[in-house]
Amino acid sequence: MSPELKYDEWLIVEESFIPENNRASESIFSIGNGKMGQRANFEESYSGDSLQGSYIAGIYYPDKTRVGWWKNGYPEYFAKVLNSANWIGIDIKVNKQTLDLSKCIVREFRRVLNMKEGYLQRTFKAELQNGNLIEVESKRFLSIVDTRIGAIKYSIKAANFKGKLELTPYIDLDISNEDSNYGEKFWKEESKIVLENEGYLLGKTKKLDFYVCSGMKFNIEKNSIPISNQVIKIEEQKYIANSCEVEVEQNDTVIIYKYAANLSTQDYELADLIEETKKAVHGAQKLGFAQLLNEQANAWEQKWEESDIEIKGDISAQQAIRFNIFQLNQTYTGEDERLNIGPKGFTGEKYGGSTYWDTEAFALPFYLSTASPKVSRNLLLYRYKHLGKAIENAEKLGFVNGAALYPMVTMNGEECHNEWEITFEEIHRNGAIAYAIFNYIRHTGDESYLSDYGLEVLIGISRFWSQRATLSPIKGKYVILGVTGPNEYENNVNNNWYTNIIASWTLEYSLESLKKVESSSPEKLKKLINRLDFDLNEETNKWKDIVQNMYYPVSEDYGIFLQQDGYLDKENILVQDINPLERPLNQNWSWDRILRSPFIKQADVLQGIYFFEEKYKLDTIRKNFYYYEPRTVHESSLSACIHAIIAAKIGDIETAYNMYLRTARLDLDDYNREVEEGLHITSMAGTWLAIVEGFGGLRVRNGNILINPVIPDKWDSYSFNIRFRGNQLNFTVNHKTFDVTNKQGGEITVLIGENKYSIDKGNTLSLDVI
Amino acid sequence: MSPELKYDEWLIVEESFIPENNRASESIFSIGNGKMGQRANFEESYSGDSLQGSYIAGIYYPDKTRVGWWKNGYPEYFAKVLNSANWIGIDIKVNKQTLDLSKCIVREFRRVLNMKEGYLQRTFKAELQNGNLIEVESKRFLSIVDTRIGAIKYSIKAANFKGKLELTPYIDLDISNEDSNYGEKFWKEESKIVLENEGYLLGKTKKLDFYVCSGMKFNIEKNSIPISNQVIKIEEQKYIANSCEVEVEQNDTVIIYKYAANLSTQDYELADLIEETKKAVHGAQKLGFAQLLNEQANAWEQKWEESDIEIKGDISAQQAIRFNIFQLNQTYTGEDERLNIGPKGFTGEKYGGSTYWDTEAFALPFYLSTASPKVSRNLLLYRYKHLGKAIENAEKLGFVNGAALYPMVTMNGEECHNEWEITFEEIHRNGAIAYAIFNYIRHTGDESYLSDYGLEVLIGISRFWSQRATLSPIKGKYVILGVTGPNEYENNVNNNWYTNIIASWTLEYSLESLKKVESSSPEKLKKLINRLDFDLNEETNKWKDIVQNMYYPVSEDYGIFLQQDGYLDKENILVQDINPLERPLNQNWSWDRILRSPFIKQADVLQGIYFFEEKYKLDTIRKNFYYYEPRTVHESSLSACIHAIIAAKIGDIETAYNMYLRTARLDLDDYNREVEEGLHITSMAGTWLAIVEGFGGLRVRNGNILINPVIPDKWDSYSFNIRFRGNQLNFTVNHKTFDVTNKQGGEITVLIGENKYSIDKGNTLSLDVI
Repeated sequence: MSPELKYDEWLIVEESFIPENNRASESIFSIGNGKMGQRANFEESYSGDSLQGSYIAGIYYPDKTRVGWWKNGYPEYFAKVLNSANWIGIDIKVNKQTLDLSKCIVREFRRVLNMKEGYLQRTFKAELQNGNLIEVESKRFLSIVDTRIGAIKYSIKAANFKGKLELTPYIDLDISNEDSNYGEKFWKEESKIVLENEGYLLGKTKKLDFYVCSGMKFNIEKNSIPISNQVIKIEEQKYIANSCEVEVEQNDTVIIYKYAANLSTQDYELADLIEETKKAVHGAQKLGFAQLLNEQANAWEQKWEESDIEIKGDISAQQAIRFNIFQLNQTYTGEDERLNIGPKGFTGEKYGGSTYWDTEAFALPFYLSTASPKVSRNLLLYRYKHLGKAIENAEKLGFVNGAALYPMVTMNGEECHNEWEITFEEIHRNGAIAYAIFNYIRHTGDESYLSDYGLEVLIGISRFWSQRATLSPIKGKYVILGVTGPNEYENNVNNNWYTNIIASWTLEYSLESLKKVESSSPEKLKKLINRLDFDLNEETNKWKDIVQNMYYPVSEDYGIFLQQDGYLDKENILVQDINPLERPLNQNWSWDRILRSPFIKQADVLQGIYFFEEKYKLDTIRKNFYYYEPRTVHESSLSACIHAIIAAKIGDIETAYNMYLRTARLDLDDYNREVEEGLHITSMAGTWLAIVEGFGGLRVRNGNILINPVIPDKWDSYSFNIRFRGNQLNFTVNHKTFDVTNKQGGEITVLIGENKYSIDKGNTLSLDVI
Repeated sequence: MSPELKYDEWLIVEESFIPENNRASESIFSIGNGKMGQRANFEESYSGDSLQGSYIAGIYYPDKTRVGWWKNGYPEYFAKVLNSANWIGIDIKVNKQTLDLSKCIVREFRRVLNMKEGYLQRTFKAELQNGNLIEVESKRFLSIVDTRIGAIKYSIKAANFKGKLELTPYIDLDISNEDSNYGEKFWKEESKIVLENEGYLLGKTKKLDFYVCSGMKFNIEKNSIPISNQVIKIEEQKYIANSCEVEVEQNDTVIIYKYAANLSTQDYELADLIEETKKAVHGAQKLGFAQLLNEQANAWEQKWEESDIEIKGDISAQQAIRFNIFQLNQTYTGEDERLNIGPKGFTGEKYGGSTYWDTEAFALPFYLSTASPKVSRNLLLYRYKHLGKAIENAEKLGFVNGAALYPMVTMNGEECHNEWEITFEEIHRNGAIAYAIFNYIRHTGDESYLSDYGLEVLIGISRFWSQRATLSPIKGKYVILGVTGPNEYENNVNNNWYTNIIASWTLEYSLESLKKVESSSPEKLKKLINRLDFDLNEETNKWKDIVQNMYYPVSEDYGIFLQQDGYLDKENILVQDINPLERPLNQNWSWDRILRSPFIKQADVLQGIYFFEEKYKLDTIRKNFYYYEPRTVHESSLSACIHAIIAAKIGDIETAYNMYLRTARLDLDDYNREVEEGLHITSMAGTWLAIVEGFGGLRVRNGNILINPVIPDKWDSYSFNIRFRGNQLNFTVNHKTFDVTNKQGGEITVLIGENKYSIDKGNTLSLDVI
C-alpha cells in the first residue's frame, strides 16, 4: 500500500500511522544533502516492517554477481551503494518498556517533510503496554551547509505518568543490505571510542577498503533546562551507545539533541578521520540545533530561489513539482565530480545507487537551468574521468584503438550491469554521453570545456561508433546490428533508428568539434592528437563516410522513422487493445511475449526526435508521435516526460498534460506500487522537463534562450526560473499574459516564438498570450 | 590436460597416472547401465583433484536458479541430477598408513575400460611413505543384467612387507554437487543399518523427497581363501562402514569383493526399500563376482551384436566409434519411459543430467537402428507424458487453447533452462519433438503410435506454431519473430529459416496425421478431438493457411536459404579469416562480438536440409552447404555430424571425412579441453550418424531401407548393423565391394542407389562398388 498524503504547497504530510505503508513512507520522506541520504526510518526501536537505509555518496561495494556465469565479457560484480551506519538511532524506554510503534497504541501520528526548509518532522502520541502515555516530537535534517552533519531533536513528554525515561543514543554499524547477493555483510569494525555523551565508530568496507567514521554527540534537556545525568557507556561489536536515565514527573518534557557526522577516506586521510569527525560533531553541537536548522532553512531558501517552480490553481501539481525539485536537490549538489545521480538517489537500495544514462539524458538539463554551471560541469567531468575505464570496457568487447564504450551502470567507470542484452547491446547510452557535452556547451557557452575535456571523450566514443557500425554487404550502407534501443522491450534488434541517429550525430558533432578546437586551440588539439594517436585523416574520413552513408529504417507508408528493421513485421495492435488487467505488461506478460509484441516501454524513435528536434519538420514529428505514442506503454518512469515535451511541441496540449500527470506524482501517488523501494529520482527531472521544455517550450537556439509557452487549462498560472549563462530569468505564464523577468545579469535577448526581445537587467517583458 | 590413451580395438587404456588428468580420465572411464552411472573415481581414499560422481537416473533436485530474477516466465529452478551415495568406497590402510595415490609413489599404473565386456579395471603398484609396497588390482562394473547392482573386486598384494592391512568398505551419503547454486547439500539421512559385512543407508533428497537406499555387502579372501575376521561397525552422520583388519605376510594377496545396490522409491514402495535392497545385495553376493561379470560380458556381447560398427584399417577410428556406441548403450537402455538421455549422460554434473532436443534430433536414430523399437518408443513416450507440462509451459508464455511448448531443458517436463534467449526463444526444439514421431514411425512402421499417442502431441505442438507464427502486416506472409535457431550464436532473430521450415512441416505432418488417423482409427480420432476440444475445421484451416503462406528468407544471389532475416547484413567473412588464437570463439570473444559476427555455432539451415533432404535438389543442398560450412565454427559437438552427412550426400567425401574426424574422438582426444566435465553423450550419436547416414548413406524411403555407401580412403572397410522393422541387417563396405546381409527376419527389399534388391533371410547381397 501507499501512504495517503495531504496536499500542501510546501509540505509532504502524512497523518496516520499505517504499518503496511511504512516502507513507502520511509522512501517518500527521505532526507539527503548530496553527500548523505537517510530514509525516514524511526529514531526509536521499531520491530515492524522497515527498510533501514542510511547511505553515503560514493561508498559502495562490488558485490559478486549472480548472473552471467559463462558468457565472456560480463562484469564480475554489481556495485551497490552500501547501507551504512545507523546514526539516527535513539532507543527509548519508558519505565523499562521499550518504545516501539509496532507494539503500542499510536495516536495523532503526523509525519511532515518540510521542503521549504529541508527537514523531517514527526509527532505522535504513544500509549505503551504499561499504560504510560508519551507525546513525541522528532525533527531531523541532513545539513546542506555542512554536508558531513546530521542533527536530531527528539522530544518526549510524559503525559500521564511519572517515573523513568531511559534514552540510548547509539551508532550501529552491524548493518546489512537487503540486496546483498550472497547474504554477506559488507562492513567491518576498525575501532571505536565511547566517551560520555559522545562516541565514534570507525568502520571499513570489505574489498574496496573505504573507511567511514561515524560520530555522535548529544545533550539532554528537561523542561528546557540542560541536565547532565550519569551515562552508561556501551560498546558492542560494531555498536556504540550511551544510556542515560532521566526521572520525570507528569507533564515533564525531555529533549535529546543528537549531532552526528559521517566522514570518509574519500575526503580525509585515514589518520585524521576520527579527529576530524570529533571536530565536526563538536562544531555542530556548539552551533546548536536551532542555529543549524536556521542555516539549513536559509540555504534551502537560496536553492528555491534558483530552482522553484510555482503553479497556481493546482495544489496537487504544486506539491508534486516541489517534491521533485526538492529530491533532485537533495540528491546531487554538484560539489564533487566523483559523485553522480543514481536512479533512486539515496532513498533505497534498488539500482545500487549507480549511474545510468538517466543522468545525461534526463537529469542534466535540470541542473543546467537551475544551478551554477559548475554543477553540470562536474556531471560531465565524472564521465571524463571514467574515459579510461570506458576504453577498457570496449576492449573487453573486442574494440580497439581507444574506442570507448561507457557503461550502462557504473560506480567507478567499470560496467556492472549483468544482462547481455543491456550491458553489451544498449549502446545508445554512449551517444547520450556525447550529447551531454553538446548540451552543456550549448547552454553554458563554456567552449573551453570542449578543448580541455570534451573532445577527448568525443573521440573515444566516435572511435567506438566507427567500429561498431559495419557496412552491410547488401544494403551498401552502414548498419548497427544487434542493439537494444531505449525501448528495452525489444532486444538485439538491427538498426534501431535512435541508436543509428545518435551514433551518426556523435560522429558529426565530433567532426565539428575537431574543427572548432583546431581554430580555437590548435596547440591543445595537436597534443591531444598525439596523445591519442589519432589519425586525423583516416579516422575522420571514415567518420564522414559513416555520417554520409548511415542506414536509417523508415516506413514510407506511415511517413515515419522505423524503430528497427523488423518493427513492421510485428502485429499492428495498439496499447488500447490490451486488456487493462494485463497492465503493466512487465508484471503480467512473459518476457518473450513482451519482446514479440509491438509495445514500446519508453520513448525510442521519439527520444531521438526530442534530442534532434531541429532536424525534423513539424509534420514528421507529428506523424511519428501519433504512430508511436499509441504503441507505448510508458513502463519506464522516463517515458512520459519526453512524450509530454513532444506533444506540447506539436500543439497537443491535452496529451502533453496527460503525459505530465503520469510523471508528476509518480512517487507521491505510488502509481507503480513500488515506491517502497525508493524514489524515482532521475525521472523527477523528467517532470521538470515536461513543464519547462514541454509547457514552457524552453530551448536553446544559436546561443539564445527560446521560449514558446502554453498553459494547461487546469492551472491558473505557473512560473519557473532559468539560469542561462550570466542571467537569471523568471518566466511566468497565465492564461492571458506571459512575463519574462531578467532577475540577474546584463541585458539579454530572448527568442519568443518567432520574435526576438531584449530585456534589461531587472526588467520584465510582459506579453499577451495569443 | 587430457589423458594419453593407447589405441585398441576394444579397450580404452591409460598407462600412467597423471594427477592433472585425473578429472578427464574419471569422465572417460565412466561406467553406467542406463539406471546408474559412476565416474572412474578411485575406491580408496584420494586427496588429489577429483570430481566425485555417482548418479542414479531420474533422481534430481530442483535447485533454485541464480538468474532471471525479474523477468516473468522464467523457471524457478535448474534441475540437476544429484550426485548420490558413494557406494564404491573402500578405504585401505597399510600398517596404519592410508593408501592415497596423491601421497605415494605410483608405478605401473594402468586403467582399462573393457568395452567388450563392460567393466573398468585398474592396476598399479604403490610405495607408501612408510616404504610398504603394494600391488593393487581393482575391477568394477555396473550390471546391465540387474541394473540395481554394482560389484567391485579389489585386490591388494603385500609386495615387500608383512603387517596389517585395514580395509574399510563404506557407503557415504555426505555428498555434494559441485554445481550446487547456493552451496547446499541435497541429501538427508533417513535411517541406516550397519551389520557385520553389510550395511544399508536410506537417504532422502530435499524438496522432491526421492528416497534411495544404498546397500553393501562384502567378503574378503586372503590368498584365495575366505577369511572372516572381526569387523568394527561404524555409523556416522550419512555414513556407514565396516572396518576390518587382516594380518599379512610378504606376498600375501587380500581381495575384497564388495556388492552394492541402489534402489529408489521410483521403483519400490518406501516401506519395502531397505528389504528389497538387502535382497538385491544378498542375491548379488550369492551369484558372486565372477558369475556376475560373466553375465555382464554375455549381455554386452548381445548389445554389440546389434550395435557394433567395425572399421578395418584405422584402429583409432575403430576404438572411437566403439567408445561412442559403448557410452550410448551405457546411458540409455530404453527400459523405462521416465528416463532419457542427458547430454553428458551419467558422466558429470554439467547440463544437470536433463533432457535436451539432442535426444530427438541426434540420439533417436541410433536407438532406432540398433535396438528394439520399444527403446525408441519409450523415448517418445517420455515426451508424451510431459505433454501436460508442455501446455503449462506455453501458457506461462501467454499461449492458449492447449498449445504445447516443450522445454529446452527438463527433468519432469517443466522448463528449467534459465536464459531467456534460449528458454523462451529457442522454440525450434518443439519441431524436433514432432519430427521424432515422424522418424520413429517411418523407421519402425508402428502406425499405431500415431493414433495412440503421437497425434495428441502433434496437435499440441501445432497449436503452438499456429499461435506463434503471426501474419506480417507488411509481408502478407506468416513470420516467426524473435527466435533463436540451432545456431545459438545468434539470438532473438526474425524468421530463422530452420524454425520456419520445421514449424510449417509440423503443421503439414499434423494435417496428414489427422487424415491417417481419421481413416485408420476414426473412433480414436473422435475421442481425441472431443477431449482436446479441437476445432477440426477452424484449426486445420489456420494450419493450412500458415503452411501455404509461411515466409522463408532466401538469397537469390547466392541461391541459398537465409539463416534469418538479417543474416546478409552481417560482415561477409569466413571462419578461415579468424585468427586461430581466437578460437574457440566462445572462449575468446565477448558474447556481443559473437552475436554480431556471421559465425555459426552449429548446423542451422543445414539442420533443416538434413531433416527435409527430400524436398531439395542436390544443387540447392550443395549451394547451401558451401555457403554455410565456411561460416560455421562447429563449437557445438552436434555440428560436425550433420555436416558430415550432407557432405557425403553431395559427394564431397573428403569434407565428410574431415567432419567425421571432428566428432569421432571428441572426448577421447579431448579437443575442447573440457572432457573433465563429462562426456558428450548425445554427440556420440552424431558420430554414429556420420558413419551410417553419412558414409553408409542410410535413409528410409517409402518404408524401405535406402543405402548409398561410400568409404573414406583411409579405411580398408567398415561394417554396421541396422535393425529395420522385422529385420536385422549387416552392411559391409570396402573399396571394391559392398555386402548386405539379411541376418534376421524374412525377405527384405533394400534400395541401393537407384536400384531395388530383394534379400532372403540369411543371404548376403554382394555388389561391386562403382
